[in-house]
Amino acid sequence: MKRAYNFNAGPSALPLPVLQRAQEELLNFQNTGMSVMELSHRSKEYDAVHNKAKQLLRKLMNIPDTHDVLFLQGGASLQFSMVPMNLLPREKVGNYVLTGVWSEKALKEAKKVGQTHIAASSKEANYTYIPSLDQIQLSERAAYLHITSNNTIFGTQWHEFPNLPVDLIADMSSDILSREVNIEQFALIYAGAQKNLGPSGVTVVIVRNDLLEHVPENLPTMLDYRTYSSSNSLYNTPPTFAIYMLSLVLEWVEEQGGVKMIEKRNKEKASVVYEAIDASAGFYSPHAEKGSRSFMNVTFTLPNEEITKKFLAEAKEQGFVGLAGHRSVGGCRASIYNAVPYEACEALAEFMKQFQKRFA
Amino acid sequence: MKRAYNFNAGPSALPLPVLQRAQEELLNFQNTGMSVMELSHRSKEYDAVHNKAKQLLRKLMNIPDTHDVLFLQGGASLQFSMVPMNLLPREKVGNYVLTGVWSEKALKEAKKVGQTHIAASSKEANYTYIPSLDQIQLSERAAYLHITSNNTIFGTQWHEFPNLPVDLIADMSSDILSREVNIEQFALIYAGAQKNLGPSGVTVVIVRNDLLEHVPENLPTMLDYRTYSSSNSLYNTPPTFAIYMLSLVLEWVEEQGGVKMIEKRNKEKASVVYEAIDASAGFYSPHAEKGSRSFMNVTFTLPNEEITKKFLAEAKEQGFVGLAGHRSVGGCRASIYNAVPYEACEALAEFMKQFQKRFA
Repeated sequence: MKRAYNFNAGPSALPLPVLQRAQEELLNFQNTGMSVMELSHRSKEYDAVHNKAKQLLRKLMNIPDTHDVLFLQGGASLQFSMVPMNLLPREKVGNYVLTGVWSEKALKEAKKVGQTHIAASSKEANYTYIPSLDQIQLSERAAYLHITSNNTIFGTQWHEFPNLPVDLIADMSSDILSREVNIEQFALIYAGAQKNLGPSGVTVVIVRNDLLEHVPENLPTMLDYRTYSSSNSLYNTPPTFAIYMLSLVLEWVEEQGGVKMIEKRNKEKASVVYEAIDASAGFYSPHAEKGSRSFMNVTFTLPNEEITKKFLAEAKEQGFVGLAGHRSVGGCRASIYNAVPYEACEALAEFMKQFQKRFA
Repeated sequence: MKRAYNFNAGPSALPLPVLQRAQEELLNFQNTGMSVMELSHRSKEYDAVHNKAKQLLRKLMNIPDTHDVLFLQGGASLQFSMVPMNLLPREKVGNYVLTGVWSEKALKEAKKVGQTHIAASSKEANYTYIPSLDQIQLSERAAYLHITSNNTIFGTQWHEFPNLPVDLIADMSSDILSREVNIEQFALIYAGAQKNLGPSGVTVVIVRNDLLEHVPENLPTMLDYRTYSSSNSLYNTPPTFAIYMLSLVLEWVEEQGGVKMIEKRNKEKASVVYEAIDASAGFYSPHAEKGSRSFMNVTFTLPNEEITKKFLAEAKEQGFVGLAGHRSVGGCRASIYNAVPYEACEALAEFMKQFQKRFA
């Protein structure tokens, strides 16, 4: 069976060797006579999986001892609420940079919890760019500055992070582990796993320990970061299979040469698709401004609706999956997360060139 | 490889045919060229899986149109908070029957949200029994009555449900789908999947639709039942693989002849273990009173700590997994959920008899 060219925006492609390994040991994990799904979350076998995932993430992302790694559920969408519930005290202001649908949602949830401020926004331009760092205007009494490091829907990405006297919080759901990042710049990072980390069902939070000292009392236990920090994310039953898959994906990243090599390859992958766009003399029109282009999600439109439909139909026939753009942007989107091979991007670029020729 | 006799309390045994099927199609789901984990949650292939899980649960549990089925994350522990956040208005009182550690935790979270009342409790007897229905004393202005239908740790189970003029809410995490239940008796049922439904990582909520009309405004989106109800539990990315596994487990239950047959088998399984206890002349001492015994978790102690250790060590050598009791009860616990075969229970009973003989 031929593997699909999987350009899904998430859940998305997983590395083939990871799936093969999961398949091999699905019925019998390490000679336990059980599937990894059947292990108690209090067993030594599962504990090793859990801690390996945590330690590998620490190693690969170079996470300093000042920060803890937590495994949660509920996706980034639940973090939109947990961040302000834990970190936005009544007298302070949550600052948000709006760069797309997901930042808007994060802001909407924060408004239910406390005071907020829009520190910068590119909404007026349908989110075609990331505001420059000097456009960011912090409020007084800022609790934190929240950004969305990569915007899946609009295909934009921060290429430099704000360095302001405020705690920086990033939703990195769609570009975590895709490039080297200095964790020390961040107070908190969160990410749903289903793009670069594994299957859906586990959310990673990287949090600077001192933030936990100011979490308000009396939060629901499952919404209090300290519950996860003090229990090694084992207060209740974690999503054990999703964390197992995360551990396998992290091993794969390590085998690839770590994040540095992954980043290099991601840039090559993005280049080959962007080149097809840029060489098309306007046939493929990029949504994102050049300086804000994402290496994870390449968004572009075609001359009209009819040609777009034809493009998507032919692409599908040729084994390309997930290329339809989000309704807020239209057109097409190629999500090229870590597990998408260079060859898939090359094949897409070639298909784009051939398709254009027939319309020239 | 011999399958372990898996008596884990959860995550726990899954049906072998379910694991085999998951293994077979792990790399290529229905000729998509992708793993089910790699499918978009907006794809028609995943949609079919999602809806099949929902419809099969409706069919198997005979869920009437008055009730909706929701898929969430966070386990029963998050439901401890979501129930009162959604269903306990300021002027009303959440009524709780305490039958173990999990009911205590549910009550603790409700106290953070609003007024509560203990309607009955067997705490004074270290939760060896389920209070009789006439012991239940509702408060005035009761919003609901919350029970834990099966108590994993103490090995007790409700065998008849309260029929009072109040909305009945049940944490059925450890006995959902193990026996026929009249859903109409319940306003809301919730259950983490990792005992009878599938792997950990998905939580099932069955809720009577009219309850959703009174949910307070301005709850965090991910903690509002209406978010799941109005989006077919697809507001954000659901735990797709866990729901896929749920759909396979439900198909398996159907193939077994449905819940009626599963219940019959569960009673036979429990009988063979309880018989070994009852025939032991006090060597194995049951924790639960006879009328409150659980068909899911059989709890018992041995004459002393030393013999208990020996028992657990020998059991482990012979391929029995997960028999150590919870620290609040001590001794042993055999969790015999739906997927644990009769043969495993028979083997355990035989082992218990042989072990006792050597100490007689």
